[in-house]
Amino acid sequence: MPVKLTVPEAASLKPVRGVQLGYAEAHVRKSGRKDVLVITLAEGSRVAGVFTLNQFCAAPVILCKSFLAEKADIRALLVNTGCANAGTGEDGLNRAKQSCEALGRLLNLQVNQVLPFSTGVILESLPVDKVIAGLPDAIENLKEDNWLNAAEAIMTTDIVAKGTSRQIQLGGRQITITGISKGSGMIHPNMATMLGYIATDAAVSQTALESIIHYAVNKSFNCITVDGDTSTNDSLIMMATNLAGNAEVSESSADFITLRNALTDVAIELAQAIVRDGEGATKFMTVKIEGGRDEAECRKVAYAIAHSPLIKTAFFASDPNLGRILAAIGYAGVEQLDVNALKLYLGDVLVAENGGRAPAYLEEQGVAVMKEAEILVRVDLARGKAACTVWTCDFSYDYVKINADYRS
Amino acid sequence: MPVKLTVPEAASLKPVRGVQLGYAEAHVRKSGRKDVLVITLAEGSRVAGVFTLNQFCAAPVILCKSFLAEKADIRALLVNTGCANAGTGEDGLNRAKQSCEALGRLLNLQVNQVLPFSTGVILESLPVDKVIAGLPDAIENLKEDNWLNAAEAIMTTDIVAKGTSRQIQLGGRQITITGISKGSGMIHPNMATMLGYIATDAAVSQTALESIIHYAVNKSFNCITVDGDTSTNDSLIMMATNLAGNAEVSESSADFITLRNALTDVAIELAQAIVRDGEGATKFMTVKIEGGRDEAECRKVAYAIAHSPLIKTAFFASDPNLGRILAAIGYAGVEQLDVNALKLYLGDVLVAENGGRAPAYLEEQGVAVMKEAEILVRVDLARGKAACTVWTCDFSYDYVKINADYRS
Repeated sequence: MPVKLTVPEAASLKPVRGVQLGYAEAHVRKSGRKDVLVITLAEGSRVAGVFTLNQFCAAPVILCKSFLAEKADIRALLVNTGCANAGTGEDGLNRAKQSCEALGRLLNLQVNQVLPFSTGVILESLPVDKVIAGLPDAIENLKEDNWLNAAEAIMTTDIVAKGTSRQIQLGGRQITITGISKGSGMIHPNMATMLGYIATDAAVSQTALESIIHYAVNKSFNCITVDGDTSTNDSLIMMATNLAGNAEVSESSADFITLRNALTDVAIELAQAIVRDGEGATKFMTVKIEGGRDEAECRKVAYAIAHSPLIKTAFFASDPNLGRILAAIGYAGVEQLDVNALKLYLGDVLVAENGGRAPAYLEEQGVAVMKEAEILVRVDLARGKAACTVWTCDFSYDYVKINADYRS
Repeated sequence: MPVKLTVPEAASLKPVRGVQLGYAEAHVRKSGRKDVLVITLAEGSRVAGVFTLNQFCAAPVILCKSFLAEKADIRALLVNTGCANAGTGEDGLNRAKQSCEALGRLLNLQVNQVLPFSTGVILESLPVDKVIAGLPDAIENLKEDNWLNAAEAIMTTDIVAKGTSRQIQLGGRQITITGISKGSGMIHPNMATMLGYIATDAAVSQTALESIIHYAVNKSFNCITVDGDTSTNDSLIMMATNLAGNAEVSESSADFITLRNALTDVAIELAQAIVRDGEGATKFMTVKIEGGRDEAECRKVAYAIAHSPLIKTAFFASDPNLGRILAAIGYAGVEQLDVNALKLYLGDVLVAENGGRAPAYLEEQGVAVMKEAEILVRVDLARGKAACTVWTCDFSYDYVKINADYRS
């Protein structure tokens, strides 16, 4: 079950002026499930995206990148679940484009004003006719207060719909930020089968929005991992409708940091929600590495810990088998690491120092921390000032079950 | 259950002249289990070792490296299970040394003529008194035809004892090679909680033996992975007692390749046995990458596939969810990979080409291959002539169970 994560109240997801959302049950995934989502944006909206680095990236990702590179005036997003349209070659590109054309015809837009997204099984052909057949229903129910339905429409193995809002003041105007995300397996830095859509009504320049999305993704979606796999389809989109009436925020505006931090905050909450809903997760782990020479080596250590199936199964069992963490630190690939200088903490408890178990450490202390649903693993490498934080979850029977049965 | 792996017949493990093996039940691990092994070598034997690259390497590994670097005349090996003596700092080194001193006293050897090895739980103090108390029993039953007992004495979560022999002719003399190994989890290239001991009665020079062990380890133990974790204690030792009466083999001898290949063959069988007995394994997978620009990029792709929990759970389920393999190829980090040029095969079946599913591929074909106990995944990167092969196993409920319960 998701770790300290519940479905948001519909009313807690605030409408963003200029953003309408509509969904359909198009039978792409299975009957009785919302599986198509349409998002429309008011004229003058700005859009930025960050996508998977997987070289086998899906057809919709290729199109998104191309349409954004053309600096087209993006006015709609189309998402389907049930089929990733990845590993589908030229035919997959054609099908994705057909879906954009179909939505464009219905909304009076050019094909490149529609960004397509898909999530689901890889290497299967997109049933584009079903997607297109669902579009009239989705357009029929387009409205601004449809964020919770939208969050539900993009779920795959997710147990809980994920969304959050923030409202801030910017130059005397109230700004709303609302975001939704999906993803629960195959989650890894550099974006995994993860979709995220964050919208604001703030007025913000294109370059500022692009700067913000890169900053935010590095602090959020690129800091999570469930199983170390990186998906073919991951996409994070930030949209700004410019309808809040504030003075346009540029990178040099006094307001820039305020807006950036609020958008980043939403991105972090959405990213963490994906880990909390990690496939089979029973624990939420924060892995914090400090005292590194640079951030890169801190990330190596953090991911060695966060990816280790041995560590993740021990956390599942609430077993403070901390030697496995030391082993992971040792094979993380940090050059000239002094294993006698580093310190390992579980929560607030000093567990290891001087290359071995801390003299004052008692097994009961470790067990007490391990029984919590949220656990902090902290390593002080004691060789510099760099740090990084990664979030992950434990590895349970249910992870195997979910992934062994995924297509059945 | 182990995949096509059974306990070797005692008689199939041929004695190696000059190598005696004795064991004890010393209650380091649990009652009623052999947990201490002593191996003695005839005077004039040559010994070479390869050890874990984990920077948190265990006390016995530090001592082994040091004794071998001193070019001491190694005459005995001492192995205990139940405790890894890793993450134990200065005290761990002292305890490992005490165990060598104790065996040295009983065998009339210097401390640095005894190589120590430990495997088991990390971060716990070695009960050296128990190990030492077991030595007289082990010495009492030292004999040349004790290889199967020795293989059993080094098991931890292994289900099946692992050993094999080869006999070859070298310069008109019969040469025997016998090896044993242990390990079933935390198995990864660069040696994991894996111990391997390979002995031959061949006469071989020290430099030739060292050349052979490095060649052999790169073709065997460095090509296997169960869960991607690299242990603190892994060690492979090759011993040559020089008693076969052949002319000493040097790197320039005509016999060199023959001996090297026979020793490598034993190393490969022992390494594969570890994967076949991988924790919770139900399938044995050979991942063969061809057509790469260099071996390094082939290894990246092979390990991306072999480490992916998503792929490993799909194999457990006999589900040809081959898109997950394409995704892993895509995130393996190969520069400028042309995903449209590569080909993916499952067994003999062409599954994917031109960036998508092969037109002739039928799901039934994939399912048929996936139901086999031994499965070949082959990728042709179509950009060069380099290749590599990695062996791994699937990821089952039992993997989680074994590792969640390991210390209980």
